[in-house]
Amino acid sequence: MAYKKITTEDILFFQSIKGLKAVHTDLEALTRCASDETEDLHYLPEVVIEPETVEAISVIMRYCNEQLIPVTPRGAGTGLSGGALPVMGGVVLDMKRFNKIIHLDKRNLQVTVEPGMITQELQDAVKAEGLFYPPDPASKGSCFIGGNVSENSGGPRAVKYGVVKDYVLNLEMVLPSGEVIWTGANVLKNATGYNLTQLVVGSEGTLGIITKIVLRLIPAVKHDLLMLVPFRKPQQACEAVNAIFRAGFTPSALEFMERDALEWSMRYTNATGVRLPDDIAAHLLIEVDGNDMDVLYKDMESISAIVQQFDIDEILFADSHEQKQMLWTLRRKVGEAVKSNSVYKEEDTVVPRAELPELLGIIKAIGKEYGFQSVCYGHAGDGNLHVNIVKGDMSDEDWNNKLTEGIRKLFKEVIRMGGTISGEHGIGLVQKGYMDIAFDNTQLYIMKSIKKIFDPNGILNPAKIFA
Amino acid sequence: MAYKKITTEDILFFQSIKGLKAVHTDLEALTRCASDETEDLHYLPEVVIEPETVEAISVIMRYCNEQLIPVTPRGAGTGLSGGALPVMGGVVLDMKRFNKIIHLDKRNLQVTVEPGMITQELQDAVKAEGLFYPPDPASKGSCFIGGNVSENSGGPRAVKYGVVKDYVLNLEMVLPSGEVIWTGANVLKNATGYNLTQLVVGSEGTLGIITKIVLRLIPAVKHDLLMLVPFRKPQQACEAVNAIFRAGFTPSALEFMERDALEWSMRYTNATGVRLPDDIAAHLLIEVDGNDMDVLYKDMESISAIVQQFDIDEILFADSHEQKQMLWTLRRKVGEAVKSNSVYKEEDTVVPRAELPELLGIIKAIGKEYGFQSVCYGHAGDGNLHVNIVKGDMSDEDWNNKLTEGIRKLFKEVIRMGGTISGEHGIGLVQKGYMDIAFDNTQLYIMKSIKKIFDPNGILNPAKIFA
Repeated sequence: MAYKKITTEDILFFQSIKGLKAVHTDLEALTRCASDETEDLHYLPEVVIEPETVEAISVIMRYCNEQLIPVTPRGAGTGLSGGALPVMGGVVLDMKRFNKIIHLDKRNLQVTVEPGMITQELQDAVKAEGLFYPPDPASKGSCFIGGNVSENSGGPRAVKYGVVKDYVLNLEMVLPSGEVIWTGANVLKNATGYNLTQLVVGSEGTLGIITKIVLRLIPAVKHDLLMLVPFRKPQQACEAVNAIFRAGFTPSALEFMERDALEWSMRYTNATGVRLPDDIAAHLLIEVDGNDMDVLYKDMESISAIVQQFDIDEILFADSHEQKQMLWTLRRKVGEAVKSNSVYKEEDTVVPRAELPELLGIIKAIGKEYGFQSVCYGHAGDGNLHVNIVKGDMSDEDWNNKLTEGIRKLFKEVIRMGGTISGEHGIGLVQKGYMDIAFDNTQLYIMKSIKKIFDPNGILNPAKIFA
Repeated sequence: MAYKKITTEDILFFQSIKGLKAVHTDLEALTRCASDETEDLHYLPEVVIEPETVEAISVIMRYCNEQLIPVTPRGAGTGLSGGALPVMGGVVLDMKRFNKIIHLDKRNLQVTVEPGMITQELQDAVKAEGLFYPPDPASKGSCFIGGNVSENSGGPRAVKYGVVKDYVLNLEMVLPSGEVIWTGANVLKNATGYNLTQLVVGSEGTLGIITKIVLRLIPAVKHDLLMLVPFRKPQQACEAVNAIFRAGFTPSALEFMERDALEWSMRYTNATGVRLPDDIAAHLLIEVDGNDMDVLYKDMESISAIVQQFDIDEILFADSHEQKQMLWTLRRKVGEAVKSNSVYKEEDTVVPRAELPELLGIIKAIGKEYGFQSVCYGHAGDGNLHVNIVKGDMSDEDWNNKLTEGIRKLFKEVIRMGGTISGEHGIGLVQKGYMDIAFDNTQLYIMKSIKKIFDPNGILNPAKIFA
């Protein structure tokens, strides 16, 4: 695809559009939109536009579609697969002015929100009305809900409450043609035509610009209890995950951390509240929630009894709000801690939950074979394991070539186990070279053809998902 | 589209395929596949084929795709929108030999099942292992799981546990080209490419022939409690639904029945266990479930207190398994009871839950204006109201023309309220003329283009969904 380079004339056109906050061409603004939280990647856009109205986006899209100018929508830039990087230059559509709740419908337990609202702020706003929007990616304090929808984000609570896709009822989006459509209806059940809503959730900004999001909410949950369980053998921590589910419990979080993950996060956050004896190899962070404290205490007791069948050290029961916060901060900061420690790549493997112990063993074996160190942690309750591969003293040559082979081998194993290559981070830029492992040509042909329906000229977030 | 009529040569070809149980051309077999449970519609296919293997389906599809022979997949024929009717003749692919559980994966709480298994049998099989597949359409004793997936079925439990789409992880399907693909992976979280799985769920057999279904399961729930609440004013029954949710309760069923619905079902089933005083206008059937009886009794008490704020008669608490069965049978048989009473049309309106009282008022007002009587019942907890329009002594002229106008007016109101025209029955044949109310040309263009990707020659379940 030969895209057009943006000219002074184009800039003048953009500046003439009503409903824009700004049209940036200065290096500082362009640089700010050149990266996200994925590795150390930088792609400068040619212009950054901050639209304030749907109509303005419609005008921009129609123009860029006619002129063959690439458009990359951008949320908060917290993505971990390079989905918001303007790889082909062109326009970055910075959605941060779309930051309002349009309608908090308490009667129907629904909220209509713009894509540029910070997820945590949305959660707080609905909580103030006794309602609950559960999905909680680690970056929830800074990421935008629109990015969450585009990547089908998860987070610790997904194990009980589901991921973003389980809350999206309806989306308003602007197509490259400039047309504005809704994908569905504001209802809990829908058997009317094809499910365009679920097609757009997780499509990483490649099908249209999301401008309104209708989410279902649930009643707020009153209480939760949290415990940290130290295991001497990491495989046993993974096995315990399954034992808990098979006993009939569904914790509201069930997080796995290898020793390094916790240790690095403790150092990074200067945390002191957790003992970490030398013989501890991994931890499970287990939360239960509900409205009845008696039931929660009973559940916590039963789960303790289950994990005690394994080789564990003393369980830490968080007995104050502060202690819970401290443990959650440790968990949420693992990614940043690893990043601060070394150049790294993060993989986002996901397998059927009971295959976790095998997956962990395979990761370590492949690491040994290909010469890389990994720090593993993540949402064990969902079978979703983040594999942070640390460059350490690997040569650049090995890092760029041999490692890719190792990752391909790992992903093939993941597929063999019934899993797939991304659970919640998306494919974006950095995983697209592995899509041939997850899908054959027929599957890829269907996906690429769907892309063409929405975006026949290929202007929307180009060079993403497909190699 | 000019389809080919089936010739003796075609029949000989079908008979030569390995992996078929039967190729029927006798009138009895053709007639059996000419109807489903939708109104009084009959469309004779030219041949009925019962495949036993995926490979056989692949050969059939490739042949029919080349020869331009229509293929309509058929489950148990319990559909309510004519989705399985061979409107253009051709082949009916009778999936009843695909009736096995391929793998009940207790470790991962997943089951891989063939589409021709009866939903109730699937539920019983997983229950025997302590697991639970919640979706329970009224026809669960006879419908097939493949039909449920194709129509994205719901049922009473959807209010707490979600609909079929919330349980489907992965699908194997045969495309018209004969190619066999999987739509996703066997995982709880997936951010790898477009969500083909959710695109196929609810696509009513228009995109491919589903041959394997991977469902997630949950741990079995131990207890439930059921009550029937008689209201003197139907609007108040609808208002009570919302009051229950806003108080923070999520019942496992919350069903609404107008007086006629219950009365006709009582007569149809010869039930005697329910008092129906003259001043009762509607009922709510309310179930809670969980693992702790103390909690359930407390919930039931709180819900009773909520409904007692309305103008109700004495609540019936089901105090035995038999009484629960009796109440559920009454609810499940409403559709059949209405059918036995008169020629009727069933609409499947769905709105945001709190709009139910308004919807009910609108239905009655439109009925008065256009001269039709309606019996309303359904899944009030989801905002999903079935409107059975009874022909009674309406003239054929009014039934075929004036009524259509009335339904169009009703659907326009449903859309205005943020709802849509089918919650769980699908569009199929009988609702396709109303799709222009739910969607504009751009939305319909996207859907039709998606259809063309999967089925470029239009041989698969033709004349469905789109007018």
